[in-house]
Amino acid sequence: MPPSKSAKQKPQWKEIAHEAQALRDQSLADVGTTVQLPLQLPTNVINIPEIVLSEANIRITSLSPQQLMDLLSNGRLSAQEVVQAFLERAVTAQKLTNCLTELLPQRAIFRAVELDNHFSRSSVPVGPLHGLPISVKSHIGIAHRPLASGYCALFHSHARPVSDALVVQILTRAGAIVHARTTEPQSMMQLECASNIYGVTTNPYSNIDLSSGGSSGGEGALIAMRGSVLGIGSDVGGSIRVPAAACGIYGLKPTSFRVPTTGWSSTPPGADPIVTVLGPMGVNLEVLELFMRVVVAAESWKVEPALIPLPWRAVSIDPTAEKPLRLGIIWQDEVVQPHPPVQRVLREFVDKVSGLSHVEVVDFPVYKHDEAWAIVSSLYFTDGGDADIAVMAQSGEPLLPLTEWIIKENPGVKKLSRSELEYWLEEREEFRLEYSQHWNKTGRWDEASGSWENTVDAIICPVTPGVATRHNTAKYWTYTAVWNLLDYPALTFPAGRADKNIDVRDNRKRFLSGLDKENWQLYNPEVFHDMPVGLQIIGRRFEDEKIIAILKFLENKI
Amino acid sequence: MPPSKSAKQKPQWKEIAHEAQALRDQSLADVGTTVQLPLQLPTNVINIPEIVLSEANIRITSLSPQQLMDLLSNGRLSAQEVVQAFLERAVTAQKLTNCLTELLPQRAIFRAVELDNHFSRSSVPVGPLHGLPISVKSHIGIAHRPLASGYCALFHSHARPVSDALVVQILTRAGAIVHARTTEPQSMMQLECASNIYGVTTNPYSNIDLSSGGSSGGEGALIAMRGSVLGIGSDVGGSIRVPAAACGIYGLKPTSFRVPTTGWSSTPPGADPIVTVLGPMGVNLEVLELFMRVVVAAESWKVEPALIPLPWRAVSIDPTAEKPLRLGIIWQDEVVQPHPPVQRVLREFVDKVSGLSHVEVVDFPVYKHDEAWAIVSSLYFTDGGDADIAVMAQSGEPLLPLTEWIIKENPGVKKLSRSELEYWLEEREEFRLEYSQHWNKTGRWDEASGSWENTVDAIICPVTPGVATRHNTAKYWTYTAVWNLLDYPALTFPAGRADKNIDVRDNRKRFLSGLDKENWQLYNPEVFHDMPVGLQIIGRRFEDEKIIAILKFLENKI
Repeated sequence: MPPSKSAKQKPQWKEIAHEAQALRDQSLADVGTTVQLPLQLPTNVINIPEIVLSEANIRITSLSPQQLMDLLSNGRLSAQEVVQAFLERAVTAQKLTNCLTELLPQRAIFRAVELDNHFSRSSVPVGPLHGLPISVKSHIGIAHRPLASGYCALFHSHARPVSDALVVQILTRAGAIVHARTTEPQSMMQLECASNIYGVTTNPYSNIDLSSGGSSGGEGALIAMRGSVLGIGSDVGGSIRVPAAACGIYGLKPTSFRVPTTGWSSTPPGADPIVTVLGPMGVNLEVLELFMRVVVAAESWKVEPALIPLPWRAVSIDPTAEKPLRLGIIWQDEVVQPHPPVQRVLREFVDKVSGLSHVEVVDFPVYKHDEAWAIVSSLYFTDGGDADIAVMAQSGEPLLPLTEWIIKENPGVKKLSRSELEYWLEEREEFRLEYSQHWNKTGRWDEASGSWENTVDAIICPVTPGVATRHNTAKYWTYTAVWNLLDYPALTFPAGRADKNIDVRDNRKRFLSGLDKENWQLYNPEVFHDMPVGLQIIGRRFEDEKIIAILKFLENKI
Repeated sequence: MPPSKSAKQKPQWKEIAHEAQALRDQSLADVGTTVQLPLQLPTNVINIPEIVLSEANIRITSLSPQQLMDLLSNGRLSAQEVVQAFLERAVTAQKLTNCLTELLPQRAIFRAVELDNHFSRSSVPVGPLHGLPISVKSHIGIAHRPLASGYCALFHSHARPVSDALVVQILTRAGAIVHARTTEPQSMMQLECASNIYGVTTNPYSNIDLSSGGSSGGEGALIAMRGSVLGIGSDVGGSIRVPAAACGIYGLKPTSFRVPTTGWSSTPPGADPIVTVLGPMGVNLEVLELFMRVVVAAESWKVEPALIPLPWRAVSIDPTAEKPLRLGIIWQDEVVQPHPPVQRVLREFVDKVSGLSHVEVVDFPVYKHDEAWAIVSSLYFTDGGDADIAVMAQSGEPLLPLTEWIIKENPGVKKLSRSELEYWLEEREEFRLEYSQHWNKTGRWDEASGSWENTVDAIICPVTPGVATRHNTAKYWTYTAVWNLLDYPALTFPAGRADKNIDVRDNRKRFLSGLDKENWQLYNPEVFHDMPVGLQIIGRRFEDEKIIAILKFLENKI
C-alpha cells in the first residue's frame, strides 16, 4: 500500500495521474474534432480511423512522408491542413490505444502558420522537413511541458525544461512540427507500456489483450494508426525495436553518440554504462533515413561533445559474383526459441532473399546470449534500483508487475560495489572484443592486406521471441538487448503477419532453458492471430547507413 | 622496508632489477658497437653522439624521417644500414640518459634483411614506412618480450605477449622496424621517469640534474638524441607531451579511440574512466602525421570495436579576411603561473603569429582548471591505488617519491564507492559539456544556421609550468591533464630555449595559490638555462588533423 500522506503536503499518485490525464484530455479537446467512435469496437482497431475520419483527413494522413514532403514543399498542401489532419487522427488513436500523454495543438498550429507564412512569402520550404508533423516520446523534453518520465512524482517535481531537447530543436529547425507526445512505461525499463500516470497503451491490432510493446509504446501505437508518420523513440534494451515490431512499423536504434540526447534526462550523455540512444520510428525506411540525415547534418558534436563527428555517409549496395552481399541469420539464440509465427516469417524472408542474385545467406553462429544478458542487466541499475524505488515512494505509486520483475526479480539487477561495477565494465568491453572477433571469423583473414575479408555484411534475426505480448509478460529482452550491449545499430522492419492456420503450436517436449519453456507456454495461435511480425537487421558499430542501404536493396528486390 | 622473503620462493625487487638490467645490457652488447664515451661529460650531452659516432652513422641518423623514407624507398639506403646506425646511436643515448629497457638487434636486423630482400626483388617498398626504425615505450607489448610496465614484480609475473601490440603490428606491416624499447616510470603515473627496475632516465640537455619528463621519458630522451626519429608513447595525464616538451621534440596525444591500444595492458579498451591513449613522438611534425595516417588507414575498428571508424581527413588551413584563423591563448591557468622561460617563449610565439595576415589571436579564458584536476585525479585510481600498492608489495619494491605523492598525498586519489565513482563520471561529462559551451562562446551563435560561428580554431598554451623538472618535483599536471579529461587532441612542439639572462627570477609576493608558490620556488635560472621550452596546441575532440594542419601552417609562415 502507498504511504498515506496529506493531499495538501504532497499529492498522492492517483491525484497526480488524474491531473495529468485531465491535462491530456484537455489537449485532445483543444484539437476541436467531433469524431465519434463506434459503440462496438472490434479487437483489431487498426482500420477504425479510416471509418470515422473525414475523407480529407484520410487522404492526407495516408500519404507517405515523401508524398507529404513533396506536396508541402511545392505548396499543394499547407502545413496547417497537414498538422490539423494528424492532430485529429492522433485523437482517434488515443481513444483506441491510449498512446498519448498530450497533444500540442497550440504549438503545432502556431508553427504551421509560421511555416505557411514563410512559404507564401518565399515559395521555398524552411528545410527538408517543412511542415511534417512528428511525435515525441514524452521523456524527451519539450519546452515548458511536464517531464514525468513514466513516474507520477516527476510530473510535478521535475523542473519543466526551458527549451526543447536538442534533437527536437534540430528537427524543428528543419521544418518539422511537434504535434504529439507519447506514452512510456513506469521506470522506462519495460518492453511494454504501462504506467500509473497514464495507464496501459494497447496494440492497435489487438486493443484488449495485447501490449503495444515498449518502452516507446506510445510511438508504436500512434504511428501504426497513422496519427504520426515519424516519431522519436529511445532504446537501451529494445525500447524502439520491440514496439515497432509489435505494431508493424519501422524503428532504428542507431549506434550511440550519433543522435544527440541533450534534454532527455538529467544524466549527461556519456556517463551511463549502457547508453540510451534516441532514434526514429516511422511508417517506412525512407523516413528513418531522412531523420538520420537531418539530425547528423546538424553537427551537434560542438554542443554535445560526447557525439562522434561522423557525417551521414552514402553507402551503395551493389553485390557482384566477386563481392556478394552476405547475410548472417540468427534463427534462435540458443536460450529461447521464438514462437512459430516469428520462425516462419524469418524463414520466408530468408527464402526470398536467398533467391536474389549475388546475395549469400549463411547461418550466423550465436555467441553467448546468456552471458550478454548477465552483463547488460548488471549494468542497467547499478544501484539495484534504489533511485527508482525512491521516486516511486515519493508519490506512493505501486510498482507495476514488469517494474517489479526487472528491478526485484532479475538476478542481474543488484546494488553493485565499485569493484563489481568495474568488473562488469570490463566484461562489457571483453564481450564487445570477443563478438567483433566472432563476426570477423565469418570471413577469412587476409595476411597481405592485414584485414578480414568477406565477412558477413549484416545479421538478420528475430526482434522478440514472439509477436506483441499479452500484458505483463514481456520478460525476455536478449534478442534486442544484446545489440545495446554491443552498441551495434539495429533496425526493426515489418516482415509478415501471424497466422493461426499455419503457425500452430507444436508439442515441444525439450526446451533450451527454463526461459524457453516459459516463453513457449505464452504461445497462443488464436490470441496472436494476424499480429504483425517484425525482424531485425543488425550492422557493426557505426554501420547505421549500411543496414539501411542493405534493407532498402532487399525491399526493392523482393 | 620491503618484506623479507626467501629469494628462492620469490625474487626480491633488487634481484629482478639486476636481471632486467643485465638483459638490457646484453641487448646493447649484441649491437656490436665499440663506441667509447669521453671520460669527462658535460651536463648537456645532446651533442655527444655527434662527437663519438662515425661519420656514416651521423649522416644517416641526422636525416629527417622524410629524407630517410625517400632514400630507403628508392634503394639508396638499405634498411640494414639504417637500422644498424640507429641501434648504435641508441646505445650511445642509453649510456648518456638511461632511456632504454632493451634494444632488439636480432629482430630489427632480421626484419631489415627481409625488407632489403623484398626491395631487391621488387624495387618497391613494402609500405609507407619501409625500413624506418621506431622505438616503443615498454608497456606496449612486443611479442615474446617481458612486460614489466614499470613494476619489478611484473617483469616475471606478467605473461609475455604472444604477439606485438596492434599498433606495432600496423606499423610493422607498413615497413617500420622496431629497434628499441624505452623506459617508463614506476606506476606509469609520473610526469618523470624513475623506476626501481631500470633507474632514472635523465634529460639529454642536463643529464645530471633534470628529468627527461615522463611517463614516456625514455622516448623523449632517445628521440632527442636521435637514437630514434619516431616512437610510440602513451598519455593519460601528459605522458607524451611532458617528455616531448622537456626534451625538445614533438608529441601528439590524439583523441581517444583513434589509435588502437590492444596489447598494451590487461584492461580492455573502453573500460577506463579516463582513457590512456597511444600516440606518436618524433623529431618533427610531418612524422607525427605520417604515423597517424598509417595507423588510422589500417581501419582497426573491426578488431578493436572501441575505436571510431573515422578516416584520417585532409584539412587545409587557408585563412582569409572573412574567415581568419583564430587562436586562443591560455597564458596561465589561474592556479599556477608558469616559470619565466615558458611565459616568455609563449609571448614570443604569440607575437610572431600575431603578425601573420588573417591570423587573429585572442585570450582564451581559463575554465575551472582546479575543478578539472579534482575530477581527473579522482578517476585515475578509483581503488585509491590498492592494486598498484599490491603489485609493489609483491616484489617488495619501495614506492618512489612521485608514486608516493600521486597515490598517497594527492587529495583526489582515494578509494571510491560505486556512487562516488558514478558521481565523478557525471562530473566528467558535465565538465566536458560546460567546456564545449565555453569554447563555443568564443564565437557567436548564428540563429539562421543553428550553429556557433567564428569560434576559436585552436588553443595555444603551456605544456608544463616550467621546463624539464629537477628530479621528483613534477607535481603539477593540470596544463596537460585537463585535455585528457576533455579528450581533446593536444600536440607539443618545441618553441624556444630557456635563457638565464632574460628569464630572471622576479620577486613575486602574491601567488595564485599554494601550488603556485610551490612551483615558483622551484624556478632557478641557472639550473634551467638553455633547456628546451615546448608549447601545446589544442583542438576540439577529433580535430587531430586540424591542429596538425594549423601548426604546419604556422611553422611554415614564421
